[in-house]
Amino acid sequence: MALIVMKFGGTSMAGTERIRAVAARVKRAVDAGDRVAVVVSAMAGETDRLVNFCREASPLADPREYDVVVAAGEQITAGLLAIALQAAGVPARSWLGWQLPVRTSDAHSVARIEAIDTAGILAAMDRGEVAVVPGFQGLADSGRVTTLGRGGSDTSAVALAAALKADRCDIYTDVDGVYTTDPRIVPRARKLARITYEEMLELASVGAKVLQTRSVELAMKEAVRLQVLSSFSDAPGTLVVGEDEEMERELIAGVAYDKNEAKVTLVGVPDKPGVVAMIFGPLADANINVDMIVQNIDKGEGTTDVTFTVPRAQLPLSLDVLDKARAGIGYARIIPDANVAKVSVVGVGMKSHAGVAATMFRALADRGINIQAITTSEIKVSVLIAQEYVELAVRVLHTAYGLDGEAPAEAEDVL
Amino acid sequence: MALIVMKFGGTSMAGTERIRAVAARVKRAVDAGDRVAVVVSAMAGETDRLVNFCREASPLADPREYDVVVAAGEQITAGLLAIALQAAGVPARSWLGWQLPVRTSDAHSVARIEAIDTAGILAAMDRGEVAVVPGFQGLADSGRVTTLGRGGSDTSAVALAAALKADRCDIYTDVDGVYTTDPRIVPRARKLARITYEEMLELASVGAKVLQTRSVELAMKEAVRLQVLSSFSDAPGTLVVGEDEEMERELIAGVAYDKNEAKVTLVGVPDKPGVVAMIFGPLADANINVDMIVQNIDKGEGTTDVTFTVPRAQLPLSLDVLDKARAGIGYARIIPDANVAKVSVVGVGMKSHAGVAATMFRALADRGINIQAITTSEIKVSVLIAQEYVELAVRVLHTAYGLDGEAPAEAEDVL
Repeated sequence: MALIVMKFGGTSMAGTERIRAVAARVKRAVDAGDRVAVVVSAMAGETDRLVNFCREASPLADPREYDVVVAAGEQITAGLLAIALQAAGVPARSWLGWQLPVRTSDAHSVARIEAIDTAGILAAMDRGEVAVVPGFQGLADSGRVTTLGRGGSDTSAVALAAALKADRCDIYTDVDGVYTTDPRIVPRARKLARITYEEMLELASVGAKVLQTRSVELAMKEAVRLQVLSSFSDAPGTLVVGEDEEMERELIAGVAYDKNEAKVTLVGVPDKPGVVAMIFGPLADANINVDMIVQNIDKGEGTTDVTFTVPRAQLPLSLDVLDKARAGIGYARIIPDANVAKVSVVGVGMKSHAGVAATMFRALADRGINIQAITTSEIKVSVLIAQEYVELAVRVLHTAYGLDGEAPAEAEDVL
Repeated sequence: MALIVMKFGGTSMAGTERIRAVAARVKRAVDAGDRVAVVVSAMAGETDRLVNFCREASPLADPREYDVVVAAGEQITAGLLAIALQAAGVPARSWLGWQLPVRTSDAHSVARIEAIDTAGILAAMDRGEVAVVPGFQGLADSGRVTTLGRGGSDTSAVALAAALKADRCDIYTDVDGVYTTDPRIVPRARKLARITYEEMLELASVGAKVLQTRSVELAMKEAVRLQVLSSFSDAPGTLVVGEDEEMERELIAGVAYDKNEAKVTLVGVPDKPGVVAMIFGPLADANINVDMIVQNIDKGEGTTDVTFTVPRAQLPLSLDVLDKARAGIGYARIIPDANVAKVSVVGVGMKSHAGVAATMFRALADRGINIQAITTSEIKVSVLIAQEYVELAVRVLHTAYGLDGEAPAEAEDVL
């Protein structure tokens, strides 16, 4: 008899018909003898509706009151799922964030979970009840409602699984697992049976939005076995586990891409100590998230060029910040370029295998794709290329690392 | 400096623009030096939406979970009004039912308020903060969310006013007060400056739905001075007060009508002890609310006729119940009639004035309106008439008791 946390996202909870389908799925787990706690998101679109109300009421809404308003979305679905479970013959009750309680920091609208008191729901589960917990919400020491920030329900589920010492945390979503790459670009992309936390994090941070990054970090820290599955099929999902569990290590887990980057090049930057800090300090102060950074070698002229990427939406702000900092930095010219994309290969296997990057560079060169910047981590190599080549690059790399499956995948969405 | 509870209904809270208008109105009270607690309903239509979700999830929804779902409506508007007040420069915070707490019985979906802990909000009001409290919701001793039943926010407001020993409880609604009768029928109906609790209760129970009946009963019991006003105008409202405060007693406060009645006549009922119990026992068991009852005198034949009214929606059920009880009762024939209406004159003045009923009967007879049944209470005389005469009867009685105002009233709605 396993203890399982099942988490259902907004698409799975969108309307009472889908909520009944979720109840049927939970019932199957209960009938199989598992003890189950369920974490639910608000109905798809509901959180946006509530956030918009807050913005209309005031662009500078008090985050404590914002939390009161938006937490209502998950409260509604938690009650409805408990009703649907009972109607399906499964004893169930809802446990709101303040009832458990889910203790969080008091950083309203971006709170962090600090502790979950599980005594009540463990007793209820021992009585054969399914515990239904609204995701995203918690309680500050002040006694006020908090929320975890958008997408926080994944984190709620993982934190609850950790607190309950659950055997597994199943995240039901609108995709049926994690793929080697985006099946819309590569029809022969394969669903991964397993992936490590580290790989999942690297894939998420380069644009594969299957799980909220914070939830994967927390799962890794607390050693919670995660599974990503579809609410709408019975296909096996992808298990996200620690590296020690990943027995058959593949060299590369997947190929990811991100079209939401923009490149900035500062030409003629004086090559002197402290100049890099003068560039990136003001950008950090403006909350601009700088990603890839390349500094050219000074060829003896006393100046260098510095290239880096920022989120495309922040490009105008970045140019403004750099323009104001121009006197301090002393660069000659600034060249923005929004026509770029980042392509990454990710895999824990590359820790112990040389030549991964070389394979990437050769495969891209063979197709005449120019690399504008490179960054590497322990388990990832990323390159910046012109955006029009992104699909070609993903396909070429998917084949070069031997990831192509035998038949076109049926899945509709996402890496 | 007065302490005022202001309550705003669903129409007043329907959308952020109206919520900002409510905030402006609250600000005026604060600027005038009053300490203010505000009780809010859910946005118009929102509670229906949530109730429908519950019904779709299961026709027999667990009332404990139903309460979790529907309480979300007032949680949302409470947070939004706090945001709008802050945006208007008024310090404010929301206090949810479980945060105060508003302690209720554990009769989920029809809970009764038992006590309200006001220490927190009194301290907040002393700091100059407006306390925003969602109506309709509370907390059972079990630690679970309760709701008071539809329209319960009026009761929440009165209970809070009683607990705070407020100087006044202002109920803002979509009508601007209580009228001598329905201005749609009598354009010269007058808005009453004052009305007693008892009169208000009698008017409410015969179809003038300005305030929830329970809230008026509670206001009477706790001696809370109520005022009914419009959210959409600055016209003075109607004050609902105790009889001792009602200095200039008018004989009649108003004329009310109710078209939602149906008449049932049982012909040839054996005139023996216990027969009436055999009629009304099964109806009560079926939760049918019998109103007027008339038993004819036995003219020596050993049988009598019994006539009574039931809510029209319950007429088919009533006939079914009576058909099943026919053998026990032993009546000869049953005559249903849905084409009836009840017209009532209400006024505390009639306690000390004879002739009120006689005036009514004469005025109706002069117009050839036949009276099918009569009931009286201390402060009310009601007659049952054919429905086609209802508007004529209301106009005739309004004039007969000298209630006609000088000019057509501007108000659009309701008695």
